[in-house]
Amino acid sequence: MGQNLARKLIGAHLVSGQMTVGQEIGLRIDQTLTQDATGTLVMLELEAMGLDRVRTEVSVQYVDHNLLQTDSKNAEDHAFLQSACQRFGLWYSKPGNGVSHPTHMQRFGVPGKSLAGSDSHTPAAGSLGMLAIGLGGLEVATAMAGEPIYLQMPTIWGVRLTGVLPPWVSAKDVILEMLRRHGVKGGVNRIIEYYGPGLAGLTAMDRHVIANMGAELGATTTVFPADDQVRAFLRAEQREHDFVEILADADATYDADDEIDLAQLEPLIALPSSPGNVVPVREVDGRKVAQVVIGSSANPGLRDFAVVAAIVRGRQTHHDVSFDVNPSSRQTLQELTRMGATFDLLAAGARLHQSGCMGCIGMGQAPTVGGNSLRTVPRNFLGRSGTVDDSVYLCSPETAAAAAVTGYITDPRDLPRLLGIAYPHLDLPTQSSVNTAMLEPPTESQIGLVALVKGPNVSSLPSFGPLPDRIEAPVGLKVGDDVSTDEILPAGARVLPYRSNILKLAEFTFGALDDTYPSRMKATRDGSGHIVVGGANYGQGSSREHAAITPRYLGLRAVLAVSFARIHWQNLTNFGVLALEFLDPGDYQKIAAGDVLILQDIRSALRSGDTAINVHNATRDQHYTVRHRLSDRQIAMVLAGGLLPWLRQQKGGAFEEPSSSTPTSV
Amino acid sequence: MGQNLARKLIGAHLVSGQMTVGQEIGLRIDQTLTQDATGTLVMLELEAMGLDRVRTEVSVQYVDHNLLQTDSKNAEDHAFLQSACQRFGLWYSKPGNGVSHPTHMQRFGVPGKSLAGSDSHTPAAGSLGMLAIGLGGLEVATAMAGEPIYLQMPTIWGVRLTGVLPPWVSAKDVILEMLRRHGVKGGVNRIIEYYGPGLAGLTAMDRHVIANMGAELGATTTVFPADDQVRAFLRAEQREHDFVEILADADATYDADDEIDLAQLEPLIALPSSPGNVVPVREVDGRKVAQVVIGSSANPGLRDFAVVAAIVRGRQTHHDVSFDVNPSSRQTLQELTRMGATFDLLAAGARLHQSGCMGCIGMGQAPTVGGNSLRTVPRNFLGRSGTVDDSVYLCSPETAAAAAVTGYITDPRDLPRLLGIAYPHLDLPTQSSVNTAMLEPPTESQIGLVALVKGPNVSSLPSFGPLPDRIEAPVGLKVGDDVSTDEILPAGARVLPYRSNILKLAEFTFGALDDTYPSRMKATRDGSGHIVVGGANYGQGSSREHAAITPRYLGLRAVLAVSFARIHWQNLTNFGVLALEFLDPGDYQKIAAGDVLILQDIRSALRSGDTAINVHNATRDQHYTVRHRLSDRQIAMVLAGGLLPWLRQQKGGAFEEPSSSTPTSV
Repeated sequence: MGQNLARKLIGAHLVSGQMTVGQEIGLRIDQTLTQDATGTLVMLELEAMGLDRVRTEVSVQYVDHNLLQTDSKNAEDHAFLQSACQRFGLWYSKPGNGVSHPTHMQRFGVPGKSLAGSDSHTPAAGSLGMLAIGLGGLEVATAMAGEPIYLQMPTIWGVRLTGVLPPWVSAKDVILEMLRRHGVKGGVNRIIEYYGPGLAGLTAMDRHVIANMGAELGATTTVFPADDQVRAFLRAEQREHDFVEILADADATYDADDEIDLAQLEPLIALPSSPGNVVPVREVDGRKVAQVVIGSSANPGLRDFAVVAAIVRGRQTHHDVSFDVNPSSRQTLQELTRMGATFDLLAAGARLHQSGCMGCIGMGQAPTVGGNSLRTVPRNFLGRSGTVDDSVYLCSPETAAAAAVTGYITDPRDLPRLLGIAYPHLDLPTQSSVNTAMLEPPTESQIGLVALVKGPNVSSLPSFGPLPDRIEAPVGLKVGDDVSTDEILPAGARVLPYRSNILKLAEFTFGALDDTYPSRMKATRDGSGHIVVGGANYGQGSSREHAAITPRYLGLRAVLAVSFARIHWQNLTNFGVLALEFLDPGDYQKIAAGDVLILQDIRSALRSGDTAINVHNATRDQHYTVRHRLSDRQIAMVLAGGLLPWLRQQKGGAFEEPSSSTPTSV
Repeated sequence: MGQNLARKLIGAHLVSGQMTVGQEIGLRIDQTLTQDATGTLVMLELEAMGLDRVRTEVSVQYVDHNLLQTDSKNAEDHAFLQSACQRFGLWYSKPGNGVSHPTHMQRFGVPGKSLAGSDSHTPAAGSLGMLAIGLGGLEVATAMAGEPIYLQMPTIWGVRLTGVLPPWVSAKDVILEMLRRHGVKGGVNRIIEYYGPGLAGLTAMDRHVIANMGAELGATTTVFPADDQVRAFLRAEQREHDFVEILADADATYDADDEIDLAQLEPLIALPSSPGNVVPVREVDGRKVAQVVIGSSANPGLRDFAVVAAIVRGRQTHHDVSFDVNPSSRQTLQELTRMGATFDLLAAGARLHQSGCMGCIGMGQAPTVGGNSLRTVPRNFLGRSGTVDDSVYLCSPETAAAAAVTGYITDPRDLPRLLGIAYPHLDLPTQSSVNTAMLEPPTESQIGLVALVKGPNVSSLPSFGPLPDRIEAPVGLKVGDDVSTDEILPAGARVLPYRSNILKLAEFTFGALDDTYPSRMKATRDGSGHIVVGGANYGQGSSREHAAITPRYLGLRAVLAVSFARIHWQNLTNFGVLALEFLDPGDYQKIAAGDVLILQDIRSALRSGDTAINVHNATRDQHYTVRHRLSDRQIAMVLAGGLLPWLRQQKGGAFEEPSSSTPTSV
């Protein structure tokens, strides 16, 4: 029986466990990627470990989130990260160089390599035949230290692509079709592997779009084969020598199957406020649009901007529309400028912003309340744009461009009829203008010697104590299904600048759902803590480990949920919070906020090998059974209080206790 | 005796008073300019007046300050301003179209016309032979209503220019030389008129640089003749038909004189944190630089960006420098893009930001504390960058570019020796690519009919009561010399978004000097108010009338100062605050914060024609004499409680009382 690509990639990096679905496996990591919003914490974790230098083949720190610099905090973070790169031996991608995912793909992506990234869209590198996994920062830090990463062997989901995309339909519509069919939970504990004859028509950057937003299905990652399209991409980036052909065996089989005929796709759009609310554009045609935003890691390619430029060329975007362009990277903007597309965008009324994540992560470009905003970005969770009651739609560059010129949601296939705009045939350069000027390599002679530059906004990590044997604690908050890490700890211009300052950051925890949570829960910190009860897919979305750390800092001991999103589950575990699932999902209904729950003899229960744990609701005198999915390694970690204390137990001197000035919590 | 240009321009617009220095004159206004940070209030003032439509030849509302949109407030302001333009008959310059001053010059500047603008850099239009004056928003609102503006006839200061600028020295160095010689108070109550053979080598945009930063000398305005350079500029902008030659008479004389030999100038730089701290670049050569910012209304021309692009072309900016480019307008960015300069800037490592004021007004780009930031902007008041203890230097584009490539402050004349960079000879297009797509004209059929779109952040103006006959109030705050309106009411990303919300904005009043002021003074609002004591040049800098309104809203009744900056003096008067100067400046020393001052029989004293007013310091039992400089018109205005209540008294029905929902204060 032939092997699929995902199993080949996993097999090549397997250091522990068996490739049996659900079993914990350990994987060797070749490359890491961190961005600034998560990376400052990763660097503090490396410092806390006492690491001398990174042990990976390549580790890159990108600065793409905190670029607005409305006060000195962002610039302080940049200076800290630059010094940390010099100290630990990472590449440093300067502010303005671009969004991590396309930049990493262009400069560092190598077929067959494994990549761990502290950003949930890290799987974008699967477009090149890499095994690329988004993780919490602490796990990426351990990968930098040369340790394996661990996950449960996922189901491999083969999606066969046939046909060719029709005009006005592009890669974004492929992933929106996946979301339309399967929703935001459809990929949980799965690796999506695309194969089949339809691949021939999808460039590596098209595949990036699809792999990137596999995160929105909750998938562990997405993989594409390293085929001729990948070779062509690497050749254009002047790195053909990095190409290795890696394909699934011709007779490969999958644990699950699906098929998409690309020729049958039409323009799709995700309505507010979930990437899973997908309908044909046709169904919402005519709604007035106040803003169109193009850019982000979801549509980062030269093509994604050039097609918009070609559509708006010689026209004016609608006077009621703010047409915002966020170049994904300096290199892409250079290319667009060289080929004349930047001029076309500007002439049509674009607001051209600096290269980076920008509006995608709520760093500026917030629309009015009630103003429909069409974006080519990957996510539209409520409030992520920076506007509390926003109305953000996700769509392809073609659909975005159509709305920019008409002023309302428009099926781009109507552009020829409405405005006489023909489907653009792009003549893109076959060679990129490679420019690595804003990418600083590590300097061998500096590693280990450069001091970390810590401004007043960079605070050390709090340290957390071991798991107690008994938790008797109130339910501090009860939330519904699909709570995202954006809701647990928001991004945006108000909060992101505090990403390297956990004590301050904690004040924003769960602010979108209950802004009394931080003040109420702070009181539980020095007592026996508190518990959060969640519905299905708890912790979906962004990989930010801050969404585990700040509740933990405020006294969170356990989350009882119907189910968890993978990365957040791991982050909770890494910081010593018990992530427990109801054996009977109906028990979720029986618990109310404020109920006091008792978990007895937890330490021995965890050590016993039995995954079931009894919960006594003292307020209602009810009993529930919950279960954990912890491996032996993770049990040891949780008992120790999290990955960092556990690593220190394991490694002794090499991973030292942080300095005594660090704040502590229960 | 021949007439100088300034007197010709004033004479052509004089509707009341005599052109005798110090006497109040009334001027007819042809054009107005408002930007968004002051303009939202102007529109609310038009609404409060009950105005049906603007009475000027041209009124333009620009959106250039509040562009970051970190939450919905900015976008709300934009929607409000767009609706107000439609309602009142203004042009609307959309977000991203560019900074008001260069854009106005390019699209609307006409020699011989008068321009009132609610921005202190409005005098930039003096570059075209216009009489352009920066005023508080309320005065601009009255100008829009067809009323004259009033000021004291200034001294006309003739500055004769001879010679030709040497290589590496440019217009910015001319105005820095003026600041070096005369300081930030050197132009108070003066109009600076440049003349002489040196003018022939200065383009209209070069003159814009000089006229713009005349504001930093405190000048009422700056004028240049409308000569062949102006004709060439208008021709390039496809508006040669708007050209009128207006020159000083050959035998014109001036009230004061100075002379600059351009050939003798060298690169200059203003050290932190005043535009008046000017020294030769040579004196501070070698200081390490963390950031270089080019752009703003102070160096907005195509040339100012193109010369930087030429210097960095084919090189990399220093790895420790953040090289930030703020295009002054969409049109300039289009030109730069067409000629290849955008590519050169990007390739050298530029962070290219959207067109607008951006970092100049603290909307992003804040440096680290202690990181030297070299900027081509007009101001470097402490904290204006967004970083509390910033270190901002003002310099020419050439000096900025030199620092960007070397990483330290560098006399650009050393570039040939240090790096083999020859002085660039620019081949600029003689025709601009005029594109008015982001400039919406008023539509006759909409005027008066369109409803104002008021989001939750747009609050109506508070209304203020008449001046009482007796003030017995404490000195709420005592401050030193040269207190700027930035210190009275900061700009920056934290505060600017509240510019259309006085109640919220008041919480930031004097925050940089004493952050207890708002809470302490709020208590005086409903009693007899409070007094502020200031040194010389009180209220220098930006024209923002909010710096008068928010203290007034918090109970400010009078400011006793050694002297006042002109615009702020007018703003205080317009909002019914007594601006009083010590007859004996030594009395300033005798008063302490907390002292209770008594002003008796003020109403009759003001009406008496005597400018002297007695102040009794009840705490120390001392008496001081202060004087006002109010005209009869202004006395009536102050007695009524300010310009708006006075206008309502004068005009009756046409200028209605605001709706009853508006908040009130003493």
